[in-house]
Amino acid sequence: MQEDFLFLDEKMGPWYDLGNKKEDDPVMKFESVAQAIEMLKNFQQTQYAYNHAISMLYHDASTTAPSDSWEGRGKTMEILTQVTYEQMTKPENAELLSYLEANADQLDAQTRREVEVLRKGYDQIHRIPAEEYVAYSVLLNEAQGVWQKAKTDDNFELFAPVLEKIVDFNRKFAGYYQPDMLPYDALLNEYEEGLTMETLDAFFAQLQETIVPLIAKIREAKQIDNAFLFKTYPAAQQRVFSEYLMDLMGIDKTHCALGETEHPYTMNFNNKDVRITTHYYENNLVSSMFSVVHEGGHALYELGADDCYNYTALTGGVSMGIHESQSRFYENIIGRSEAFVHAVFPKLKELFPEQLKDVDEMMFYRAINRSEPSLIRIEADELTYPLHIMVRYEVEKQLIAGTLAVKDIPAEWNRLYKEYLGVDVPNNAKGCLQDSHWSGGSIGYFPSYAIGSAYGPQMLRKMEEELGDIYKDVAKGDLSRVTAWLREKIHRYASFKKPTELFESVCGRFDAKYFTDYLTEKYSKLYDL
Amino acid sequence: MQEDFLFLDEKMGPWYDLGNKKEDDPVMKFESVAQAIEMLKNFQQTQYAYNHAISMLYHDASTTAPSDSWEGRGKTMEILTQVTYEQMTKPENAELLSYLEANADQLDAQTRREVEVLRKGYDQIHRIPAEEYVAYSVLLNEAQGVWQKAKTDDNFELFAPVLEKIVDFNRKFAGYYQPDMLPYDALLNEYEEGLTMETLDAFFAQLQETIVPLIAKIREAKQIDNAFLFKTYPAAQQRVFSEYLMDLMGIDKTHCALGETEHPYTMNFNNKDVRITTHYYENNLVSSMFSVVHEGGHALYELGADDCYNYTALTGGVSMGIHESQSRFYENIIGRSEAFVHAVFPKLKELFPEQLKDVDEMMFYRAINRSEPSLIRIEADELTYPLHIMVRYEVEKQLIAGTLAVKDIPAEWNRLYKEYLGVDVPNNAKGCLQDSHWSGGSIGYFPSYAIGSAYGPQMLRKMEEELGDIYKDVAKGDLSRVTAWLREKIHRYASFKKPTELFESVCGRFDAKYFTDYLTEKYSKLYDL
Repeated sequence: MQEDFLFLDEKMGPWYDLGNKKEDDPVMKFESVAQAIEMLKNFQQTQYAYNHAISMLYHDASTTAPSDSWEGRGKTMEILTQVTYEQMTKPENAELLSYLEANADQLDAQTRREVEVLRKGYDQIHRIPAEEYVAYSVLLNEAQGVWQKAKTDDNFELFAPVLEKIVDFNRKFAGYYQPDMLPYDALLNEYEEGLTMETLDAFFAQLQETIVPLIAKIREAKQIDNAFLFKTYPAAQQRVFSEYLMDLMGIDKTHCALGETEHPYTMNFNNKDVRITTHYYENNLVSSMFSVVHEGGHALYELGADDCYNYTALTGGVSMGIHESQSRFYENIIGRSEAFVHAVFPKLKELFPEQLKDVDEMMFYRAINRSEPSLIRIEADELTYPLHIMVRYEVEKQLIAGTLAVKDIPAEWNRLYKEYLGVDVPNNAKGCLQDSHWSGGSIGYFPSYAIGSAYGPQMLRKMEEELGDIYKDVAKGDLSRVTAWLREKIHRYASFKKPTELFESVCGRFDAKYFTDYLTEKYSKLYDL
Repeated sequence: MQEDFLFLDEKMGPWYDLGNKKEDDPVMKFESVAQAIEMLKNFQQTQYAYNHAISMLYHDASTTAPSDSWEGRGKTMEILTQVTYEQMTKPENAELLSYLEANADQLDAQTRREVEVLRKGYDQIHRIPAEEYVAYSVLLNEAQGVWQKAKTDDNFELFAPVLEKIVDFNRKFAGYYQPDMLPYDALLNEYEEGLTMETLDAFFAQLQETIVPLIAKIREAKQIDNAFLFKTYPAAQQRVFSEYLMDLMGIDKTHCALGETEHPYTMNFNNKDVRITTHYYENNLVSSMFSVVHEGGHALYELGADDCYNYTALTGGVSMGIHESQSRFYENIIGRSEAFVHAVFPKLKELFPEQLKDVDEMMFYRAINRSEPSLIRIEADELTYPLHIMVRYEVEKQLIAGTLAVKDIPAEWNRLYKEYLGVDVPNNAKGCLQDSHWSGGSIGYFPSYAIGSAYGPQMLRKMEEELGDIYKDVAKGDLSRVTAWLREKIHRYASFKKPTELFESVCGRFDAKYFTDYLTEKYSKLYDL
């Protein structure tokens, strides 16, 4: 299970004019750097407040709202977004930032970084015309419902007109964000600063070199039985197991609540209020299990941020790649390890004695790691997962370049699944309609999943250099040293350090070889290759 | 079970300046009445949006938020409330209203009523100093958590300092709202326009005259057995029954969702998005049953409003009294009738075959109507219920008059329970800490429950004049004619008609005798008096 971390884009936040400006004096005067810093603090807090309110509406819509309540919520979101856009694009805010930039030597490191992040947001957003900004928000509010219906009814034609508009907006916005970049590079850069198609093409080529031969060998090897994972597992007991997993992970439930949605995700309001969601399938034991561990990893990152970043532009994880590195670290490197299975298996046996009566630890470990080319990304194993990302990457590249029309997505999607994974896509619900990202406006987001996966094994190596064999702890169900290490090295910084700087400060230069070695070792052993 | 309808006070909404005002020209110019109407519409929509966002945060806090997440939510509410307060108190809005008032002859009836309602809100709110308005919102956000802890720990001292501040604010606000009224009359007027202590004193005296002798006779009569209601009723089946009840009531679940909270309530965002909540006690079958029917009654009122009132100041039910008349109509006049029991009993037998195996319809009907002086308002029967309200009314009157100190509430509360109901209050958790109203800032709200109860039987008489014996329908589980009648007469008007005007347009002049006759007849028959 790999799921989404909903990144509350700083673009959505308001820039709040404190009203110090005199009506008859359009040029802002600052009495002192201290006063300007205070103003900066205030408008970041207001930005936080609007973000919180808007994302709360979104979270409600996804979890508990009645199904046909989009209209009134759309109205509210339209209006709040309009207000925030107006606040955001005020020239006074540019003046405030310019003043602080000119006095950067008098700012502490955190404030300097806040100015930097806010400047980036301001420069990007103030280029988007108000009517486009609002129209896009309204479109996304509708798109969620349309996509859900289209997926349910397996009706791509229903979704296509909405997706066309989303693609058009994104192509236009890319030009606003980074007029000097290729449009898709500009979108990638939104989710992972500095990530380009050039880097990704090389990275994916390297993965393909490792993965394709491994998959071929596995096809010839003795298959792993995982049928018992798909017996009947009542949701009520799965819910108990989710709570158990959160406790095991050391997630403080007074600050983190678990909800249920069609599509699992994590949403952070601040470092004391994080929500994760899962989905219970009664014919699948591990879908909710691994989505809880995955989203729990996102949540630990958010909960571990230092308090000083709350209500500022530096709140929350710094990038999609780093975020996915944390969620997938817990999900795969911890959660799909022999040691973790050893720790949780007694609880599973207790909750599902009948279903698991003929299953032992090793059978369970092997079953949850069985590799098989498949249709659904979020159900893919670690090994084939990057291939799912590559399909989306290729489709998005072409969509944004304008070389693929929306109406032709299904054909291209199905062609790529056949080419990369060797599977036939039977319908669009299990094909190009499976993910919610595009209806949420996220184009250029998927590659961060692959980058995040690749960061993990390199972090593990470093962690083990410093802490020794962490799997001894994991086997005892004790993740405290693992989480403390990640908190110390990664979590506590929130968005203070840039993603590459943060990663390199811990692990040195990124090398995909750690990831390919990890996959090779794990799957060779598993399949006795 | 009688529970709360959370009224989103129009004071919470923003008055939105559309920015037509030129910076160098503080006097607003209106090009035409049509333009002014458009501006009026826009700021009502903005008011709606902020209301929606703020109440969404509140609803989340009550339903699914992690327990220790108050701080960050308080920050957001503080900021949004500050913004709305600033927008609300802008002189331009008074100018807009004045302009429209001066051109009232060119307005349609709905717009005229909108102007009237907005004027009332504006006149009240712009007298509250900004810092008090914001401080009060922050206080209420904290108060909820403090009250919950105080109730859990049976620790009135913990809640007392917060309640003192709430009382002080309310006393001060009463002076802002209606400087010419007695402070408690001003607060009553907030929830039920025109309601005064003079009216209530007479009304309650009349009730007491009927209720006290009835209670005395019941004390001598053969007692009704209701022990079987307190066997073990698993929450999972109670949840199924709640869904069944919502369907039976004709509540459209695509527009209304049921949640779970400590204290049941209804919250409306608009006529297409209403939330109701309940609480499941596994040792009580009827607590959730009647809270669902009660809140369902509130919900039907909100869902039945005509679309034209959405996003205006006329959205939602017009007053607490009318709202309670609807919720208690469904709960008591319908829900606690023999006919309703006949309709739902087979479902109850199906869900709880063991627990109800020796129970028949009539036993069930009698059990749910058993009258007995007790401690907890929301568990009180129809007959003793008004006495619970009278206790709160007496306490509130004295608190606001300044003749009772907060620290002395427990003693006075307990004295009144002994005097009115003849019961000894064992602790504050079951005494003055039982309700959430004061922590929510609602002082002057309780009497509307009694007024609402008294409206019901008079409406029933009218309904039966026009529709004949509605209980024939009810016995078949068919509430469609009942709801259609209420929708036609009451629901669809939202806040377009004033409460008294609305009631009188349907029933003629209010007469408490319908209520006392109803109670006398029902309980005489029930206890064979």
